[in-house]
Amino acid sequence: MTDAALALDPGLVQRFAEIVGDRYALTARRDIVPYVTEPRGLWHGRTSLVLRPGSVEEVSRIMRLATETRTPIVPQSGNTGLVGGQMPDEGGGQVVLSLSRLNRIREIDLLSNTVTAEAGVILQTLQEAAANADRLFPLSLAAQGSCQIGGNLSSNAGGTNVLAYGNARDLCLGVEVVLPTGEVFDDLRKLKKDNTGYDLKNLFVGAEGTLGVITAAVLKLFPKPKGREVAFVGLPSSEAALALFGMASDRANNALTAFELIGRLPYEFTLAHAAGVVRPLASDWPWYVLVEISSGRSAEDARGLIEDILGAAIETELAGDAVIAASLSQAEALWNFREVLPEAQKPEGASIKHDISVPIASIPKFIEQAGMVVEGVVPGARPVCFGHMGDGNLHYNISRPVNGDDAAFLARYRAVNDAVHDVVRSLHGSISAEHGVGQLKRDELIATAPPMSMELMRRVKAAFDPAGIMNPGKVI
Amino acid sequence: MTDAALALDPGLVQRFAEIVGDRYALTARRDIVPYVTEPRGLWHGRTSLVLRPGSVEEVSRIMRLATETRTPIVPQSGNTGLVGGQMPDEGGGQVVLSLSRLNRIREIDLLSNTVTAEAGVILQTLQEAAANADRLFPLSLAAQGSCQIGGNLSSNAGGTNVLAYGNARDLCLGVEVVLPTGEVFDDLRKLKKDNTGYDLKNLFVGAEGTLGVITAAVLKLFPKPKGREVAFVGLPSSEAALALFGMASDRANNALTAFELIGRLPYEFTLAHAAGVVRPLASDWPWYVLVEISSGRSAEDARGLIEDILGAAIETELAGDAVIAASLSQAEALWNFREVLPEAQKPEGASIKHDISVPIASIPKFIEQAGMVVEGVVPGARPVCFGHMGDGNLHYNISRPVNGDDAAFLARYRAVNDAVHDVVRSLHGSISAEHGVGQLKRDELIATAPPMSMELMRRVKAAFDPAGIMNPGKVI
Repeated sequence: MTDAALALDPGLVQRFAEIVGDRYALTARRDIVPYVTEPRGLWHGRTSLVLRPGSVEEVSRIMRLATETRTPIVPQSGNTGLVGGQMPDEGGGQVVLSLSRLNRIREIDLLSNTVTAEAGVILQTLQEAAANADRLFPLSLAAQGSCQIGGNLSSNAGGTNVLAYGNARDLCLGVEVVLPTGEVFDDLRKLKKDNTGYDLKNLFVGAEGTLGVITAAVLKLFPKPKGREVAFVGLPSSEAALALFGMASDRANNALTAFELIGRLPYEFTLAHAAGVVRPLASDWPWYVLVEISSGRSAEDARGLIEDILGAAIETELAGDAVIAASLSQAEALWNFREVLPEAQKPEGASIKHDISVPIASIPKFIEQAGMVVEGVVPGARPVCFGHMGDGNLHYNISRPVNGDDAAFLARYRAVNDAVHDVVRSLHGSISAEHGVGQLKRDELIATAPPMSMELMRRVKAAFDPAGIMNPGKVI
Repeated sequence: MTDAALALDPGLVQRFAEIVGDRYALTARRDIVPYVTEPRGLWHGRTSLVLRPGSVEEVSRIMRLATETRTPIVPQSGNTGLVGGQMPDEGGGQVVLSLSRLNRIREIDLLSNTVTAEAGVILQTLQEAAANADRLFPLSLAAQGSCQIGGNLSSNAGGTNVLAYGNARDLCLGVEVVLPTGEVFDDLRKLKKDNTGYDLKNLFVGAEGTLGVITAAVLKLFPKPKGREVAFVGLPSSEAALALFGMASDRANNALTAFELIGRLPYEFTLAHAAGVVRPLASDWPWYVLVEISSGRSAEDARGLIEDILGAAIETELAGDAVIAASLSQAEALWNFREVLPEAQKPEGASIKHDISVPIASIPKFIEQAGMVVEGVVPGARPVCFGHMGDGNLHYNISRPVNGDDAAFLARYRAVNDAVHDVVRSLHGSISAEHGVGQLKRDELIATAPPMSMELMRRVKAAFDPAGIMNPGKVI
């Protein structure tokens, strides 16, 4: 028995274990470790019990017992969240409810273009199932090989395809939720239009498990694009990137499926530290963007669009240089260059991270102002700026000064966050664009959100989870 | 003084009147009539006081006094709703709060592609302001000349452009809401991505004024299409219409901006009763669709798409006949043919209306099954079937039998509704796709909604409006 186990009464552990069977009630430290640490090592927690139910009925019985005994429950699916929303606290008395065994794809409806998937389905598995049915499930993000649909919905995940297809919320038509009392809210609808009362679905999506446990969802599928082109562009300024985005949107409309900004620093870090990457452009530029066109019409159409956009961009000197991937493998290499950026930043020492959004027109202003305030707080700190520019969403991760001290730099974490987030707020932006609140940003949200916003959120929380057993300490 | 005035204490009327000024506190019967009747004559109510505030601050003071005195408030904007959501009850004690003087377009942001508009802005005014700024505000519905943005959002309005652009909810990025207590929830954000807590915005959108008063909103703007084509198609069956929809979506993707189904009966009614309409097709068919293509690329592109789709439809015998509008005025004439259908049904006598949605693949099944059950309830009744097929949304309005008696037919209103709605439920559809619940469908919703759905809605209502003063008797 671990010391943490002392926080839960053994009789209660036994009652929970009886619901799922001993095999799926984990109490040994070696079994529990994967659920209270995560791959990035940013978040740790303690628990004496991890439950792995195999059915909605078992989830329901767990929640009924949790309500009866006032036992805090931490829902968890792929355990890849970046803000600690999936982690129990350090007290050991919170039970982790893993949804990973609820991993059935219940139905793919080709006529309605929907898939009904359980919370534990791995995102990549769902993408592949859609592809096998000649459809696209567009949600795409770095952790897709291990993150799961329940967490994607609970955190309203974003990623690289939001520009054309929307975030997890936009992709979800209906949900099945087990409420704190164990009652099941069955709202697995497939309808494009339904005006019968309040929008309850969107309360659960993005609530990070604080209102109920999403056990399944109806998600939208799309036609597979018939043509895809990926280009890498070098630009003289962030203003040019903004203008290029406007021009590309105007010409390609919804066929513009990605517009990812990459600063010079992450570009250099990737060339220096990532294994096997190829320099995309021969010439150097202050800014780069990865542009993706996906045509629903034909391969030729996609090619025509990207050539038209890049031709105009070079001609008007918005772009300094550009390359179009000549093959699928080259396209993958360009995407890989974008995707390894966060990893490639690590050898440069400690970093202070942000996940911000601003109205897209304010992106250049944000970059300029945030750079100034960061320099003011930690002279020599190096802003590594990249992200989903088309959504107004940047991952603005500051590396410590060259030859600086990691610990000394990280001691300024809050000061740097505050300075950057003040800029975000002055531009009417969001301090959590796509990663959520979790534990990481809870205190700051409470301190800085518009007052009525927190008050209304507290009322929703009290209305749905009056006993306060759903993922305590997260979001609000 | 009218008899209804007895329901409100004169001292209280005076306190409310002082907030907006006597000129904008209507108490005379002739002034009040337009607010307690509506153009279609379907809904009536009584009140002794209509308040017309001129600022958010005045709305706030009205709500504070309403909470203090437990006075029921009925928010109203354009007064065009079809389900009675905007009407006070017959008791005379509910105050109508008209938002029509809050009619400023506060800002058009061309870089962020957003417009910030107050609740009383008329939809058509907003469309025109967007067009003048070289943008499209796509929400479009029959009442657009008089309906207002506050009501559009509160009822989550749909209309003819939902297929490509979404409904009012999808077009809304942020809201400003005066809560029952008078406090202002200022959430006028322009962000595509924001994961800082619960989705409160979508609770107010579609709540039909039962949770708070929407006073302003940030709405999305889109590029103006560069080419538009409208076609009218005759088809052998509703199954062919479904197949044509699938084929057109596949070829045009998001450029397919309307796909409106029209049955033979409304087609004939329109030819018989609507002034100045032209027969769209020389040959007769059991079903028709109006197809609209809007290209973001060019006029030639739109023309190419519609010709491609119709050519393939004729070749594969999905379509029996088709005409493409050769001019803007012909395109308008085809749209007009679609838009006058509801009016053209009136000379055929009493009708029993439905606003249903089903998964789009179930549309032919719905049409077949609903036709059978209606014939069972009222033999000879004539289903007039038309609507937004691309959204799975039909207005299925039954005309009384030829030479039948209006009153006898209308006496079966509930029986026909029940029979049709049973079919809708068996196909996992919605009994209110776009018009809302209001008074009309409240009892049925309470009786037939999934139990946890009503329970959760009641909790939201109690959390946001504990005194129960917001639009009582509507939705829940």
